[in-house]
Formats: sequence, structure tokens, C-alpha cells
Amino acid sequence: MERTAIFPGSFDPITLGHVEIIRRGLLLFDRIVVGIGINTQKVSMYPAAQRAAWLHTLFTNEPRVQVETFQGLTVHFARQQGAQFLLRGLRAAPDFEYEKNIDLLNQHLAENIQTVYLISSPPTAHISSTLVREVIRFHGNLQGLVPDFMIPEIYADSPASGA
Amino acid sequence: MERTAIFPGSFDPITLGHVEIIRRGLLLFDRIVVGIGINTQKVSMYPAAQRAAWLHTLFTNEPRVQVETFQGLTVHFARQQGAQFLLRGLRAAPDFEYEKNIDLLNQHLAENIQTVYLISSPPTAHISSTLVREVIRFHGNLQGLVPDFMIPEIYADSPASGA
Amino acid sequence: MERTAIFPGSFDPITLGHVEIIRRGLLLFDRIVVGIGINTQKVSMYPAAQRAAWLHTLFTNEPRVQVETFQGLTVHFARQQGAQFLLRGLRAAPDFEYEKNIDLLNQHLAENIQTVYLISSPPTAHISSTLVREVIRFHGNLQGLVPDFMIPEIYADSPASGA
Amino acid sequence: MERTAIFPGSFDPITLGHVEIIRRGLLLFDRIVVGIGINTQKVSMYPAAQRAAWLHTLFTNEPRVQVETFQGLTVHFARQQGAQFLLRGLRAAPDFEYEKNIDLLNQHLAENIQTVYLISSPPTAHISSTLVREVIRFHGNLQGLVPDFMIPEIYADSPASGA
Amino acid sequence: MERTAIFPGSFDPITLGHVEIIRRGLLLFDRIVVGIGINTQKVSMYPAAQRAAWLHTLFTNEPRVQVETFQGLTVHFARQQGAQFLLRGLRAAPDFEYEKNIDLLNQHLAENIQTVYLISSPPTAHISSTLVREVIRFHGNLQGLVPDFMIPEIYADSPASGA
Amino acid sequence: MERTAIFPGSFDPITLGHVEIIRRGLLLFDRIVVGIGINTQKVSMYPAAQRAAWLHTLFTNEPRVQVETFQGLTVHFARQQGAQFLLRGLRAAPDFEYEKNIDLLNQHLAENIQTVYLISSPPTAHISSTLVREVIRFHGNLQGLVPDFMIPEIYADSPASGA
Repeated sequence: MERTAIFPGSFDPITLGHVEIIRRGLLLFDRIVVGIGINTQKVSMYPAAQRAAWLHTLFTNEPRVQVETFQGLTVHFARQQGAQFLLRGLRAAPDFEYEKNIDLLNQHLAENIQTVYLISSPPTAHISSTLVREVIRFHGNLQGLVPDFMIPEIYADSPASGA
Repeated sequence: MERTAIFPGSFDPITLGHVEIIRRGLLLFDRIVVGIGINTQKVSMYPAAQRAAWLHTLFTNEPRVQVETFQGLTVHFARQQGAQFLLRGLRAAPDFEYEKNIDLLNQHLAENIQTVYLISSPPTAHISSTLVREVIRFHGNLQGLVPDFMIPEIYADSPASGA
Repeated sequence: MERTAIFPGSFDPITLGHVEIIRRGLLLFDRIVVGIGINTQKVSMYPAAQRAAWLHTLFTNEPRVQVETFQGLTVHFARQQGAQFLLRGLRAAPDFEYEKNIDLLNQHLAENIQTVYLISSPPTAHISSTLVREVIRFHGNLQGLVPDFMIPEIYADSPASGA
Repeated sequence: MERTAIFPGSFDPITLGHVEIIRRGLLLFDRIVVGIGINTQKVSMYPAAQRAAWLHTLFTNEPRVQVETFQGLTVHFARQQGAQFLLRGLRAAPDFEYEKNIDLLNQHLAENIQTVYLISSPPTAHISSTLVREVIRFHGNLQGLVPDFMIPEIYADSPASGA
Repeated sequence: MERTAIFPGSFDPITLGHVEIIRRGLLLFDRIVVGIGINTQKVSMYPAAQRAAWLHTLFTNEPRVQVETFQGLTVHFARQQGAQFLLRGLRAAPDFEYEKNIDLLNQHLAENIQTVYLISSPPTAHISSTLVREVIRFHGNLQGLVPDFMIPEIYADSPASGA
Repeated sequence: MERTAIFPGSFDPITLGHVEIIRRGLLLFDRIVVGIGINTQKVSMYPAAQRAAWLHTLFTNEPRVQVETFQGLTVHFARQQGAQFLLRGLRAAPDFEYEKNIDLLNQHLAENIQTVYLISSPPTAHISSTLVREVIRFHGNLQGLVPDFMIPEIYADSPASGA
């Protein structure tokens, strides 16, 4: 049986933390659908098309990774994609409690879909999109936070300071 | 001496988690005033009148439960209602730290009012109004999350999907 | 209906943290049975008789507090004492998770007994019997950690150093 | 490629919490080796042979579950079994930090073995072997804590009290 | 070598919790620059000039404390001020995880600047600017939460209620 | 004024995590006394003399680091050494709550001594002496966990397996 997992998130922008989880997830699943959640109630830094473009570039040589955008509940999206699993990275204890509540709600909404967790490794464990956006806002050094090819695109308008 | 507790919250909407705490609180207190806090700085999903109506329906046969709306600090509301206690449910460790700070502030503001905690039981412990609002937004299955009688009212306009 | 609570612990020795929870619990309950748990598998610093004697002295003028020793599961002891409640103090988030597991187990073992929590106030919140035993072991200053009358008894053999 | 996971633990005794993780793990892995860790430095309640016998009985009809005992580091055992994964259940935030340290150490010791986590569901999330041993010690009701067939064996000598 | 630390924050408004950390930090550092971070994306309760004025008044007799406003990444501000350290107060476990991520990001951005932490003491540990703003909004008693001289200024327009 | 800190611990054995905190502490303090606590109630893996010898070798070229053994309360030892500070590393949230209680107790016992914390960096943050002892027990690979020069001494009797 083919095992398919959704890796849901807002990826605003994708970080090396996300990349690590996807790469490790490929050992566990036959196919991973990266699901870019569109939340019309939150202002994003980058449009969904830009976020998807970065993901496409990253995994252009990995046919087992597919990139999609979605609106609505993640379990509905999973069902529609024929996925039996959700894949999530855990970084720290407060993450855990948040994830646990989402997990239990998802089990309640769709009992045949289960969530599988990997714990982020040290070099990337402290990287969140929220912190990365803060660094971008003030033109800080992005090396080691996002994939290298993205840095000149992000700072196309003006060079990073403080690097 | 009659023991009265305030059960404060925004109840936007009331969940089965709230209902469990009130039912268990009735074993401990002679009277519980459910205090719907009106926060003019936050946009709510349901108007206070709707939230109060649901609570009234739920406890229509329980004369020891009273439903009120209030603005301002909870301890001021408690004093005005002649309550000596605040009742709160605890779900998880991050909850705890938040509640602890509020508790210590309240002891500072009104030392003769004390807060009493119950730990939410498994079937309801993962239910928060925030998650329930997310489910409602995407027309997910609400059974087991809110009282049954509320579901047709919530989805009056359009049926739940993914049920 | 009279509301009775068990306040279980090892009280090895009793601290000002315990005293605070009992005093506040007396506002909530009509009767509190302080249950000194006898654990034959753990070495205690003070014999149960000494622990009970200190508790008796402390609450000699408070007829609503009763002191007992017990072996076995706390909920069995509660049932035997006709108590409907367990009373516990919470100090910090790790406490919380431990207490939550015990609470859920107790609800499983005896659904008509429920546990009620108070959050320890700042002056006593960091005091645990474990830390107090450490201080005693090295003759540190006990003032503010245990009731004053106990200090000369504890240091009867030799005076506290470092005070 | 066949995906094999070790599910390591002391299983002293096995609980319904363990059973849930193994059952859910079977959706994710082709083969699960339940590894009963023998720790010569800790006194166990049940001998390893008894713990293994219970596990064998439980999974007698599930050829994809194998039961083994081992001594030493889990990653060495995994390597020896040809397993690429470790499977672990997470119950609460303090669990998480402990697991994270073990995970990072294991990644350090054996980078080609990765740990996969599932979050325990409510009915079993509060069950730990430690709490179950406490219940057994005092002859409490074990229903809902361990598999039913084990209860008469555990209480063969004397019936459970407080049931 | 002179040791200089930045004490960054929004100080909206300064609380006794902040004051405690600065006073204790003066034992550790030769010079402390209180850095009022200007965040153009968040609405503040008090303008930066007011926040700075309160800080100036508080430390008017302490030449080793300097008050500045800044925009951008804290490590860039530290570098510009010739500071080798950041000083932060820790109140509770959830604080800790947040601070840890910021710390690791800062070490990534500027490895020669390190962050030093003090744990807030009980009388002030539960005070956050967020809670203080809530108290102000509803004219609660501010004594013990902010420096005394600030209270009449804060309530200049209308007296505190519930005091 | 010279600033002296005690870095207390059992160092059974010293890990790269400890080394990192001492190295970073030397930027903050003029002198660091590494205090090896002798606990007669706990069985250690290495005798205090061995633990001290390793520390001496490590800091033989750093005259600002001094190595001592002590018994009793850390604050009494600090006073005796003329230290105004305790230095501690923080790794994770559960660490934090433990440290906080010790800190508050220490402030209670000796208000002129304060504890200063650094957060462990990723490569060493997951290393605890407890985990290192487990690795040693089963002859795992110690590289990256303890200083290199110690490894042949630790495995003098038998070579590490699994390396």
C-alpha cells in the first residue's frame, strides 16, 4: 500500500526547518503533498504563488514531493488527496501542546487519518517562519535559515545589512 | 455560608469543555454565575446575546446557574456579584502558566477572592473555543465539540460538510 | 450537604506551602482531612508519628481539620472517610502534568470523587518538601519555609548554620 | 523497501497506551519489533519473561509484530534488527523534552535511524506503567488500563479491591 | 574590560518586574542600555517618548543606566552600542522556550554577543506589561505592579476604581 | 570589583555542555570556581577525584577557572569562596522550573548571591551527564559528548562499540 502524507503549513516563507522534515519524511512515506494553507484572515508576507514557486524549485528533482495550496480543514484536504497521514515537525514543548490539541481534534474529525511527528534536529530546531520574517524585515543575515537560492530573491530590492 | 463562584470566559461559542466544568463545579459551589466577558477590542464570532442565549437554554433547568455579561476586570465583577470564588478549567501545561499569572494578579487585586481549578477530562480536554471556531469556519463536524442542540443553529445557513 | 476534602501528601515535613493550601481550602470545604500517605517503599526523613504530631499542633484550634495516616490508593482512603473531594496545590507547569495524570487515573478509579486545585501563592510557591529536606540536611535557615514552632524541634540536636 | 520500526520500552507491565501506539504504528510500518529493554540496574515488578509472554499473547495473530528483549543502547538493537525507525508515543509536554534529548542523542549515535512519534489519544494518554504499578500495588481496578486478559493473571493471588 | 548589556523590551509600560531585572543586572554589568524597541507594526498603549520619560525618571540617579529607543534587530542595536551582552528576565517555562529560540537566532546572527538571563523573583514574577495594560484599561489598582510615581500619571484623567 | 561565580554540579562526568557554559561564563565573570558537589546519598559513576582531575586537565591553561569539591548548600560554598554569583546552564523548559525553585530558595537563603543563566547552544543542548552515563554503560560513541581527551581514559578497559 502506498503511504501518502500531507505536510501542511503556511510556509511564509519555507525555512530549512521545513526542508529537514520533508527530507526525513521521504524515508517514511512514499509520497508527500506539501499543503500550503491559504488563510484569508491572516496577512501573509509572501503571496501563495511565491511560496509555491519556492517549494517547486526546491523539490523539482524529487517526484515524490508534490506542492498544492488549500483552503479549509487539513483533514478534508488530506481526504481529497487520498492521504492517510499528516506529517508535522515538533520543535519544543509549547509546540507539543498546540499540536496535541490539533491532533486530537483531527482524530475526532477523521479517525482514519493519523498524524506522525518528527522532532526537529538542532541546527534547524530554533527556526520558525515567524522569526525568519522578523530577520527579513530588518535585513538580517538569512544564511542557515532559508535555502540559499532564496536569499538573493528575498533581498532583490536591497542587500542584507548586518551580515 | 453560601459559596458562589464566577465562571468567566468569552464562550464564543460555549463548548462541551465548558459544560463539563460547570457541571462539576455545581458539586463544589452552591451557585455559579457564568460571566460572559465583553471585550470591545476583540472581534467575536457570535454576539454576546447569542452566546448568552445558548447558555440560558443549556441551564434552563438548573436554577443554581446564572448567566450574566460583564465588562472590566473579573474580580470587580465577582465582588459585584457577591462571589468569593472564580472557577476555571485547566487543560494543559501552557494553560497553567497563563492561569497562574492571572491568578496571582487577581490575588493582588482582590485578596478575598480565590480561584479554584478543575482539570478537564479527556473527552473534552482538547476542545477550545478557538479550535471550534476553526471547525465552524470550514463547516466541519461539530458533534462532540458543542452541545447537540446548537449544531443546527450554527449551521442553519448551510449544512456541515465533511461530517 | 457537607463538603469534605482529603488533602493527601507525605508531609515529610509539612511546609508553609502546605499550610497555605489548607488555610485556603477551609474557605471552600466544610472539613479537610489531611491524609499522611505511608509509603513503605520510600525512606522518609521523619516518622509518620512526628509528621502527624506537627500537623496536630498546627491545627489544634481548627476543628474542621482532621489528621490521619493512610496506606493504599488515595481514592480508597477518600471513600472510607466519606470525602467527595481531593484538594491539591499546584506550583508549576511540570507539577501540572503529573497532577493531571493522577487526576485522570482517579476519575477512572472513582468517578464520584473529584480533585480541586489551588495555585500556590508566590511566597510559598517554590517551597517543596524535597527542597526543605535538602536545607535541613545542611542546617540551612528554615525561616519562611516551615512553621516557626517546628524549627527548634528540627534543629534540637544542633543549631542551624548559615542563618 | 520494507519499513521496520523498533518500539522500545520496559513494558512493566504493558498498558493499553502501549497497545494503541503499536496498533497505530502498524499502519505506518511493515514490521514492528517490540523491544523489551532489560535494565539490570532497576528493579522491575514483572520478570522480562512475563512481560514478553503478555506481549506474545496480545499479538499472536499479528505476524507483523515481533517481540524481543534487549540490553544496551536502543540504536544498537535497532541496527541489529535491521530497523530504520524507532517508534515512540508522546503523552504530554514533559515527555516531549525527555524524548527530544533521547532523539538527539540517538541521531548523534546513529544518524541513519530516525524516531517517529505518535501522540497518545485521550482514553489512554494518561496511562503510564508507573501509575499502573501503583494501582496494582493497592489492588485497584485495572479495567481500561491494561488488556482485559491480563487482569485475572495479575490478581491471581488476590482479587482487586475498590473495583 | 567594561561589560555592557542591552536590556531590550517594549516597556509599554515599564513594570516592577523590569525594574527588578535592571537593578540586579547592575551587579553583573558595568553599564546597562535599556533599549525601547519601536515596532511600527504593533499598536502601543503609550508613545515611545512617554515610555522613555518614565525610564529616565526611574534611573535619573543611576549613571550606569542609559535609555535609548531602537528599530530593527536587537543584535544590530547591541553592536551599534558596543554591548557584548543582552540581559533578559525569565518568568516561567513558556517564556523559556520563546527566549531560547530568540537566543539561538541571535547567536546565529551575531556570535560574539551573548544573552544572560535572570529569573524573576516572586513578588514581580507574575507581572507582565500585557497584564498591566489590562489592569489600566479597567482602572484597577496598580500598586505593586508599576513604580509608584507612575500611578497618578497613568490615572491622571480618572481615578483608579476597585483600589 | 572582581566578579566571581560558582559553577556547581556533580560533573559525573563533565560533558561538552558544561564546557560550553564555562567558556561563555568566562566572558561574563573574572573568575569561575567549578564546584563539584559531593552527595554522599547518591552513588556516582566516577569518584570525585577523577571528576576533579578531568576538570583540572581541561582548564590547566585557564588561570581564571578554579576547581573545588564541596559538601552542603551551594550558597554556603559560594559565600566561603567569596563568590557573588552562581552560574547555571539551561537546556529546556523542565530544567527551567527546577532551576527556578532552586533559585528562589537560594535567594531566600542568601539574598546577596544571585544566579545567572546561559541557555545551552544546539550542539551541546541535549547532552546531560545522565545520558552520557547511559552511553558509557553500553560502550556507545562518546565523540561530541565529552572532551576528546577523556574518551580513551573512559574506555581504557574496553573499546567503544557502535562507533
